[in-house]
Amino acid sequence: MRIYDIIAHKRDGLELSDEEIAFFVKGYTAGEIKDYHAAALVMAIYLRGMTDRETITLTNEMAHSGEMLDLSSCGGVTVDKHSTGGVGDKTTLVVAPVVAALGARVAKMSGRGLGHTGGTVDKLESINGFRTELSPEEFIEQVKKIGICVVGQSGNLAPADKLLYALRDATATVGSIPLIASSIMSKKLAAGAQCIVLDVKTGSGAFMKTVEQAEQLSRKMVDIGNACGRKVAALITDMNTPLGNNIGNTLEVMEAVEVLNGKGPEDLREVCVALASNIISLSENMTPEKAESEVRRVLADGSALSKLSQLVEMQGGSVSQIQNTELLPKAKFCHEVLSPADGCISFMNAEKIGSSSVILGAGRVNKGDSIDYTAGIILHKKTGDCVRKGEVLAELFSNNKAAFAESEKHFVSAFEFSENKPAIIPLIYKVIR
Amino acid sequence: MRIYDIIAHKRDGLELSDEEIAFFVKGYTAGEIKDYHAAALVMAIYLRGMTDRETITLTNEMAHSGEMLDLSSCGGVTVDKHSTGGVGDKTTLVVAPVVAALGARVAKMSGRGLGHTGGTVDKLESINGFRTELSPEEFIEQVKKIGICVVGQSGNLAPADKLLYALRDATATVGSIPLIASSIMSKKLAAGAQCIVLDVKTGSGAFMKTVEQAEQLSRKMVDIGNACGRKVAALITDMNTPLGNNIGNTLEVMEAVEVLNGKGPEDLREVCVALASNIISLSENMTPEKAESEVRRVLADGSALSKLSQLVEMQGGSVSQIQNTELLPKAKFCHEVLSPADGCISFMNAEKIGSSSVILGAGRVNKGDSIDYTAGIILHKKTGDCVRKGEVLAELFSNNKAAFAESEKHFVSAFEFSENKPAIIPLIYKVIR
Repeated sequence: MRIYDIIAHKRDGLELSDEEIAFFVKGYTAGEIKDYHAAALVMAIYLRGMTDRETITLTNEMAHSGEMLDLSSCGGVTVDKHSTGGVGDKTTLVVAPVVAALGARVAKMSGRGLGHTGGTVDKLESINGFRTELSPEEFIEQVKKIGICVVGQSGNLAPADKLLYALRDATATVGSIPLIASSIMSKKLAAGAQCIVLDVKTGSGAFMKTVEQAEQLSRKMVDIGNACGRKVAALITDMNTPLGNNIGNTLEVMEAVEVLNGKGPEDLREVCVALASNIISLSENMTPEKAESEVRRVLADGSALSKLSQLVEMQGGSVSQIQNTELLPKAKFCHEVLSPADGCISFMNAEKIGSSSVILGAGRVNKGDSIDYTAGIILHKKTGDCVRKGEVLAELFSNNKAAFAESEKHFVSAFEFSENKPAIIPLIYKVIR
Repeated sequence: MRIYDIIAHKRDGLELSDEEIAFFVKGYTAGEIKDYHAAALVMAIYLRGMTDRETITLTNEMAHSGEMLDLSSCGGVTVDKHSTGGVGDKTTLVVAPVVAALGARVAKMSGRGLGHTGGTVDKLESINGFRTELSPEEFIEQVKKIGICVVGQSGNLAPADKLLYALRDATATVGSIPLIASSIMSKKLAAGAQCIVLDVKTGSGAFMKTVEQAEQLSRKMVDIGNACGRKVAALITDMNTPLGNNIGNTLEVMEAVEVLNGKGPEDLREVCVALASNIISLSENMTPEKAESEVRRVLADGSALSKLSQLVEMQGGSVSQIQNTELLPKAKFCHEVLSPADGCISFMNAEKIGSSSVILGAGRVNKGDSIDYTAGIILHKKTGDCVRKGEVLAELFSNNKAAFAESEKHFVSAFEFSENKPAIIPLIYKVIR
């Protein structure tokens, strides 16, 4: 078998055989197939597409290119949650303790933030003392004991995907639905959970700009997961506007704790409830309605919050900072952004808002950059709100006073105003199972 | 400007701007743009195509990526001839002296053979003493003096094309008509001649398998040349069957000399006459009919042959081997291939026949391999001939007796037989100007 022929087949629009896909993934991971071969192949895939069978095979091969986590000793039904990435998306901090409080087993590996979106690992590390590097044994042991553990990505999960993703990022071939689906699902399969709920973001701050694209991607991922023996649901949720009001690591922990206290902003709470209900419905074989009432119960009675406290305690973090979020570290400086105009906010570019918080120090431009956990933004107004010129739109927080000017300029440019209130955009477009 | 965006534009089927194409060619030649970027881009070009403007710009940029030969001091109208590659194609050995005898200036750089096709430089070097490495000054000086000089490729002509061709060869992106056209024409533009005649082969032994493809390619190349101020004609000629009867270096010199002596096989002679007539028609502004009668005249009266003798003498080769080709070196061993069946030859796979001669030692599998100048094949029967079982189909020549068995097996598998004579295939399908 030759990579040349595999490229030629896809170039001509043929369906690749399982053997051809396996040959490519193994050869590329081993360095025998070169980046230029892979670049030609992924461009051909981008333009010619892949059948469902090809996509499933590619996903499986990438999942098996490294370690496959075995969570069978976790003592219950293991669940996982994945978001395609958004601004202000702190849902894992809420959803994970909620479902653990209801008996699901959350053995979760999470990422760090990069670019305009944040990462759960950074958010948890903003709590004093919280450790995200545990040994594989500690990881499983903790899940067995309290039903939940969240750590940073370690080990060698889906290395073929890592290589291929970096290449696609350099060659304008990221935006192919079968390639996105196989990239996400290969990591999820390798991460070992039996039930997977996907939060597919759509809108200005998301990679999928339209609901139709998000739906195609969701359908593909659910089908892949099912074909590989996992239970999967995908929720298509809005990312035209940041989720909740707080952006930045400690600020997001605060807001997550508010929701676990039965309060917090409605949009964040409702997305968390929907995600958690779908997980529980899959893991406990419950109707969605029954699952939702269970989820609302553990949010109301404090058992989800005490599960978060347990998690923080077990991983060495400060429980008092969860019990009283005023104790979380705070930025030295705060700067108010005032509305430049009278009117109603008709649009917010979530990606630009994410980038303004990166300028404040809350995120990374390049992998390995250090971050300021206390930096970020509290939104006072969001799409649909009407304001007067000079009213406070948001507060910016940073330990670097010099960053405010550039961040504010960027932030303000994210807003569009209209005379009348804009139409209400749905928060959750669709659930695909 | 970023290569990422250029790839994305072509991926989306947009027309690239002149600036984008220049940025790519310059960056890739300089090594700033990587092979994987170029591989993604050429696959996108393969699948999305290029407009005529894009193709012309790409050709010009590749031509100007290195040295542009200046032939203005050659003292007449400079002409060039290019074949897309065939088996038994020794036309340059005939056409170059013919047109030089008629006053055209032939300052020609030629290639070496690779794979199943031969190269003019190897053929000339099979004459004792013939030097194909001259200094640029010697090269021009000789053209001024006798109107003809043929050397090996030297200098730094169209380096961007060299890089891109090697990459396309590895990534299944050779067969794109705009890319083939720009590759060939960038080298021809850099090589400096004012009039260019292209021999576009079509059929089993050629890259263009159909006349339609060959016509598209020809049209594209003529248009590019014209847009860049050159006079260009393209002939679409048959390569279902090797051209002439002899394949291999000294064997092809012998056959070329036969044609220059007014003899030789008809197919070879007629293709040479057509190519030479088109060159003269362009360079001397003659009607094709007038040009053809001039060409036939110098073939009949011996002046083309004496031009070849002059060329050989000036470049240090043995003139007596041209005057009497029996003096050319001969292989130690000869092996007759007998017809395995009664019948008429309905098809010969020219590529397989070329490969059998490579097995005998006449060509190279890899660049830099040494070759046996005396090795090769004399065909006694060709498509359309009817034979009896046991009749001689061909003679194989080699200094390596052990090669006969494999070569014969390969050779015989190239033939198909039928009960009746097959339809006659045209030799020259079309002339495009």
